[in-house]
Amino acid sequence: MDATQKKTTQKLVRLADEVLRQAKSGENPHVEVPTRTLANVRYNEKKKIIELKGDKQKRLFFNVGQAKKFMQTFLVGSACKELIEAGKTTSIRDLYYLTKHTLGTTKQNTFEEQEESDPIIEDLEVTVDALREELHLFASNKGNLVGEITLVDSGDTIDARRMGSGGWGVPSIVEEETIQFKKHEAKFVLLVEKDAVFRRLNEDRFWKKHHCILIHGGGQPPRGVRRLLHRMHEELELPVYVLVDNDPWGFYIYSVVKQGSINLAYESMRMAVPKARFIGLSSFDKEKFGLPDNVTIKLTDDDEKRAKQMLAYPWFEKKQWRKEIEKLMKSGIKLEIEALSSMGISFVTDEFLPRKLREGDWLE
Amino acid sequence: MDATQKKTTQKLVRLADEVLRQAKSGENPHVEVPTRTLANVRYNEKKKIIELKGDKQKRLFFNVGQAKKFMQTFLVGSACKELIEAGKTTSIRDLYYLTKHTLGTTKQNTFEEQEESDPIIEDLEVTVDALREELHLFASNKGNLVGEITLVDSGDTIDARRMGSGGWGVPSIVEEETIQFKKHEAKFVLLVEKDAVFRRLNEDRFWKKHHCILIHGGGQPPRGVRRLLHRMHEELELPVYVLVDNDPWGFYIYSVVKQGSINLAYESMRMAVPKARFIGLSSFDKEKFGLPDNVTIKLTDDDEKRAKQMLAYPWFEKKQWRKEIEKLMKSGIKLEIEALSSMGISFVTDEFLPRKLREGDWLE
Repeated sequence: MDATQKKTTQKLVRLADEVLRQAKSGENPHVEVPTRTLANVRYNEKKKIIELKGDKQKRLFFNVGQAKKFMQTFLVGSACKELIEAGKTTSIRDLYYLTKHTLGTTKQNTFEEQEESDPIIEDLEVTVDALREELHLFASNKGNLVGEITLVDSGDTIDARRMGSGGWGVPSIVEEETIQFKKHEAKFVLLVEKDAVFRRLNEDRFWKKHHCILIHGGGQPPRGVRRLLHRMHEELELPVYVLVDNDPWGFYIYSVVKQGSINLAYESMRMAVPKARFIGLSSFDKEKFGLPDNVTIKLTDDDEKRAKQMLAYPWFEKKQWRKEIEKLMKSGIKLEIEALSSMGISFVTDEFLPRKLREGDWLE
Repeated sequence: MDATQKKTTQKLVRLADEVLRQAKSGENPHVEVPTRTLANVRYNEKKKIIELKGDKQKRLFFNVGQAKKFMQTFLVGSACKELIEAGKTTSIRDLYYLTKHTLGTTKQNTFEEQEESDPIIEDLEVTVDALREELHLFASNKGNLVGEITLVDSGDTIDARRMGSGGWGVPSIVEEETIQFKKHEAKFVLLVEKDAVFRRLNEDRFWKKHHCILIHGGGQPPRGVRRLLHRMHEELELPVYVLVDNDPWGFYIYSVVKQGSINLAYESMRMAVPKARFIGLSSFDKEKFGLPDNVTIKLTDDDEKRAKQMLAYPWFEKKQWRKEIEKLMKSGIKLEIEALSSMGISFVTDEFLPRKLREGDWLE
């Protein structure tokens, strides 16, 4: 076992030991689970991330309403410990099946649906302070990477400069025990929202000319991509640029990369990149780059509602961000990255990004 | 330009030349587009694929109802020719933006929505008899591959034996001009429906022990994965096994891999693998492998409707397939591949698949 595996196992064991101690001393056995609600979330101005406040909830064994969840918590914890000890990883769907069984001769199942086991996993993550990936659980495998870096994945050396058109598939678990960074010449990381844009930039060898690492997450980036961005930013000290559609959804994707999400606030510290730079599409890019009117799309009511919500978030309080969002709302239109193609198929590679980078034209 | 690129360009040029000839000789310029409707689709018993019959529709230039589509067809054709000549590829979304413009001083756009340009692409594919990928258009980048093969992707050598946990990202365009097969020791190809199962089998190094190529398409496999399966089957003469959930959707995924889909019948010849083998989950596997009752899921009304539809398809007419589908309907339950995890986390790797392969327990 490596250091992280040992540490995570110890955290799980400590949780169980404490409950045993309580039982022996005649207390009602319980765990304290940090509350994952909006009321217990705050924006940390200094760290620039969304994080949990200190509220905790007791989950008691001798309590009709809590006993089942109490047992489920330890069932999941025990399965994770076994996974780590066996050196195996599994999906949260698999974990549901792994831990589902009928109790004794009753008709009572440990879990009825995966909707029951998923929140227990999140509870466990936040209670023992370990990422899902450290518990050896994975989400979906999504996203690809190419560019000027060599890394090691499960003992195999991946030269991302020679990964063809497809790229290396970013796995869901990218912790140090699986993925190690080796030699790189990259000056920055560029995350693009869409696989089609990734393909365009890769075909044009953008990453070679501009010495960067190119990565996409197929829409909202999955945990593996976000965690990898975080690690590349922290360990390799590379700036991270984000290229998304010019619409509230694009802003939201950037925002989650930057300071984490409200739902999963407890993991921001290890997933977020507070200094991530928004390189486009900006609401001012249509004019700046002379895009034609007929590639714009009208904002929907949902878009407008979301944009308004965003103005209320403290992490969009900066003057430039207010101008950005207000411009979007005032114009009443949104733009996809692909709209740049109306100026030429490689406009994004040859004109748009180089000018943005040259002029330092991004938002933080 | 390579041979395929030349051939595709010629096909596009011939289409345009023919229209020019018609115009010069005083005919009403037109193209003949094979009809993509259910009535024009048949199951070819001999080739075991779904294919188009011969019905064609004239698309006339001097016809108020058809003039716009006529022009759109040539607009898309001309853009594809430019793409091929420039050695670039693009997404169908990009193509929409590339070809969208306002006509002269009118307010008339060439296309209003992508929903207009997508069918024109399909028309063009079937009219000039070229796959979308040969027209340099790509769909989504989805799916990963690992296993005992070396291939070349855009000049980069990909050793799929050393691709770590993530694997090589299967690109959308896998035509010979981009992807070439090199040395391999694989005895078969295994397509799994889900990325979580891919990860399980890859972590357990199933492909090494059983000498195969492991691939997933993240659900219904995208065109790139299907085309790659077809090429590996034809060029490397490898049998293809398909592992999907035991439900009508899983059967459908297998069915599309095997004989193509009704919607895209014109491409079956180059996408389908008529000899693909269904290795599970079979409706008989619950009993065969002693899976517990509590991992089953009740069939929905939709499931039952779909299963009934399947019984009517000529490609499910075989006695074994009827038994398979009837068993599913009679039992009233379905099973996910992940349900195998209830027997142990690596049950699929160590027990299920080896026994299936050993006993020749699959359907064709």
